[in-house]
Amino acid sequence: MDAADPLAALRDRFVLDTVTDPATGLPDVYLDGNSLGVLPRTVPDRIADVLHREWGELRIRSWTESGWWTAPERVGDKIAPLIGAGPGRVVVGDSTSVNIFKAVVGGVRMAGKGCTEILVDATTFPTDGYIARSAARMTGLAVRPVEPARIADEVTERTALALVNHVDYRTGALNDLPGITHALHSAGALAVWDLCHSAGALPVGLDAHHVDLAVGCTYKYLNGGPGSPAFLYVRESLQERFESPLPGWNSHAEPFAMDPSYAPADGVLRGRVGTPDILSLLALEAALEVWDGVAIEDVRTKSLALTDFFLECVAGYVPAGRARAVTPQDHRRRGSQVSLRCSGAGEVMDELIRRGVVGDFRHPDVLRFGFTPLYTSFADAERAAWVLGEVLGALPEVGPAVAGG
Amino acid sequence: MDAADPLAALRDRFVLDTVTDPATGLPDVYLDGNSLGVLPRTVPDRIADVLHREWGELRIRSWTESGWWTAPERVGDKIAPLIGAGPGRVVVGDSTSVNIFKAVVGGVRMAGKGCTEILVDATTFPTDGYIARSAARMTGLAVRPVEPARIADEVTERTALALVNHVDYRTGALNDLPGITHALHSAGALAVWDLCHSAGALPVGLDAHHVDLAVGCTYKYLNGGPGSPAFLYVRESLQERFESPLPGWNSHAEPFAMDPSYAPADGVLRGRVGTPDILSLLALEAALEVWDGVAIEDVRTKSLALTDFFLECVAGYVPAGRARAVTPQDHRRRGSQVSLRCSGAGEVMDELIRRGVVGDFRHPDVLRFGFTPLYTSFADAERAAWVLGEVLGALPEVGPAVAGG
Repeated sequence: MDAADPLAALRDRFVLDTVTDPATGLPDVYLDGNSLGVLPRTVPDRIADVLHREWGELRIRSWTESGWWTAPERVGDKIAPLIGAGPGRVVVGDSTSVNIFKAVVGGVRMAGKGCTEILVDATTFPTDGYIARSAARMTGLAVRPVEPARIADEVTERTALALVNHVDYRTGALNDLPGITHALHSAGALAVWDLCHSAGALPVGLDAHHVDLAVGCTYKYLNGGPGSPAFLYVRESLQERFESPLPGWNSHAEPFAMDPSYAPADGVLRGRVGTPDILSLLALEAALEVWDGVAIEDVRTKSLALTDFFLECVAGYVPAGRARAVTPQDHRRRGSQVSLRCSGAGEVMDELIRRGVVGDFRHPDVLRFGFTPLYTSFADAERAAWVLGEVLGALPEVGPAVAGG
Repeated sequence: MDAADPLAALRDRFVLDTVTDPATGLPDVYLDGNSLGVLPRTVPDRIADVLHREWGELRIRSWTESGWWTAPERVGDKIAPLIGAGPGRVVVGDSTSVNIFKAVVGGVRMAGKGCTEILVDATTFPTDGYIARSAARMTGLAVRPVEPARIADEVTERTALALVNHVDYRTGALNDLPGITHALHSAGALAVWDLCHSAGALPVGLDAHHVDLAVGCTYKYLNGGPGSPAFLYVRESLQERFESPLPGWNSHAEPFAMDPSYAPADGVLRGRVGTPDILSLLALEAALEVWDGVAIEDVRTKSLALTDFFLECVAGYVPAGRARAVTPQDHRRRGSQVSLRCSGAGEVMDELIRRGVVGDFRHPDVLRFGFTPLYTSFADAERAAWVLGEVLGALPEVGPAVAGG
């Protein structure tokens, strides 16, 4: 399967095989790219140049001469094709949480006058819920948690927007972005999508599906490095009405006029806030070079093949009944990770990592294995399932409701 | 003067003298450290290690094994002594603008019920005003701009807080932090200070003067690199009441419990939001090593000697009447920069930079020269004044009210 994989050569664009297990001599199998993507080979030299030449020698001149000032929108335009967005719709900077605040408050301000509530994906990654509640408190609305599959039924004319995860961080389930967006629009509500677990893993089609606002992280499938800045997407036809709750000087129409009164810039630049974090932004820009010549549709094809194969290997190698897949079998409902429920999951993951298979554990009983088609091989998938089988075969089975630490 | 300077040897901790003027063979005089500090020698090797080993090899394990997770508060504790704060009062992350939003909203929430207004320094750096207005809009208060010197007279029992710049970014004037803070407290209002132009340049004494909240930037006198993350200070006795408007998962009491309901962490960790930007945070941490063995009081002594000497040289070398100092002569009112008003300031600065003297221009007619005592020499100060004299002597005088571009 690896020999027939048209994306196999992309693996060389990453720093892999640096850590080998002393017992087997085999390199680690890294299936945690849905938490922190692997280092792309392009990054270290680029950052050395940013430090030594751009900062060390050119210093302040680099804001113009090295293109630092325009990096948030330039890097946004590089992410755009991966999520189905045209140019001028994506801006990069600040954390995912901060961007969710911008998107939710900005969305509420664009919603109808009579709106009283925000719907939030009931199984959301927690920060989305916390931030949505803060945004609701500060705009006088209420938050109502709703299962993504129920949004079409629950949305009313009082709903300002729904904040929904494209892929559930715990189960790996893919939510129906076109359908939910359409249902929200039919009720007059806006659709705000969290793409943390889909950007770089599968086609999103933001423009095609008329998504209103979206936010995503860049350190998972986009390999931008630990805590690299997040992105904000604002639909082109809404940009003129987008009012950020964080109108820093970088989003001003004339930032260097130092005008005491605020006038927003045109377009998605309104999503900028303060001085951009240049080291992290330029590391991300270099990391995005691994996408040169890669079509996100091919990434999706390989992702599904990898997760299918892993599920098949788990069925073959893991003792029956010891681990249950919670990631949907249906391709239309699957992201790019496989989550397995198993008793003692925390201890099981510790042991997997000791044996060179790096996934992660999510409270209370979920083993997560992320598949990054740019660098994960079919051999990786098989070895992970094999080692999981060894670990679960060797470990005594503990009670069904054990919560790991 | 340089031979007698006890801080002279610190210059070797920075990358200087990399760019030389082909005409004179002299290195650039860099007087723009109040906009972007010079690269400390410690940073590139540290970042190479972060990239190659911590990210490239350890990957996800570095969140615990390399101390990534605790970096925001650890780096905060390293900044703390420079601003007169005890441990556990400073946290680093996000931009200055985002932190001003946290501080102003957090302050309003701690203020008395009957408060109706926020005072904002009338000569503030614009972003403070924009963000304060957004915070006021979202908390139902009004913003009233007041000259810092008038705050003691203007504060009323309806004032929730005042947001004031410690040093004016344009004129370099130092505001009376102890006096203004005391006046605010006497009226029952909170004091929120913007330390962007004082942190690392002079003693601040946050704890000693009972400042409530403070925000500062780390890429000026703290040399953290372009867009390095800002810091937030919350007075110890207020931390329990501090409610951030950006309650991301990183400020949760148990971030990995993935609890759908929010419970804030204890202490200044409440100021954290999303995943910290590790590259920039660790570059800043390495940059702070230049402060080893340095007392901020000695930095202040040299800063005043440098700015005194520069003003004396300007008086001696610059044709009479061609440039007027707007930075106060009184040491108690002076920050660590000298601002000169002059006609055609934009063109004058362009010519200075061509001749190897790097300051900056601020709209409409201000030349700014920043003095960073850790690496600026008295010889730098003299040469800058000499070249300014040459430029102003050679350039035809333009009308008095010309605004540069």
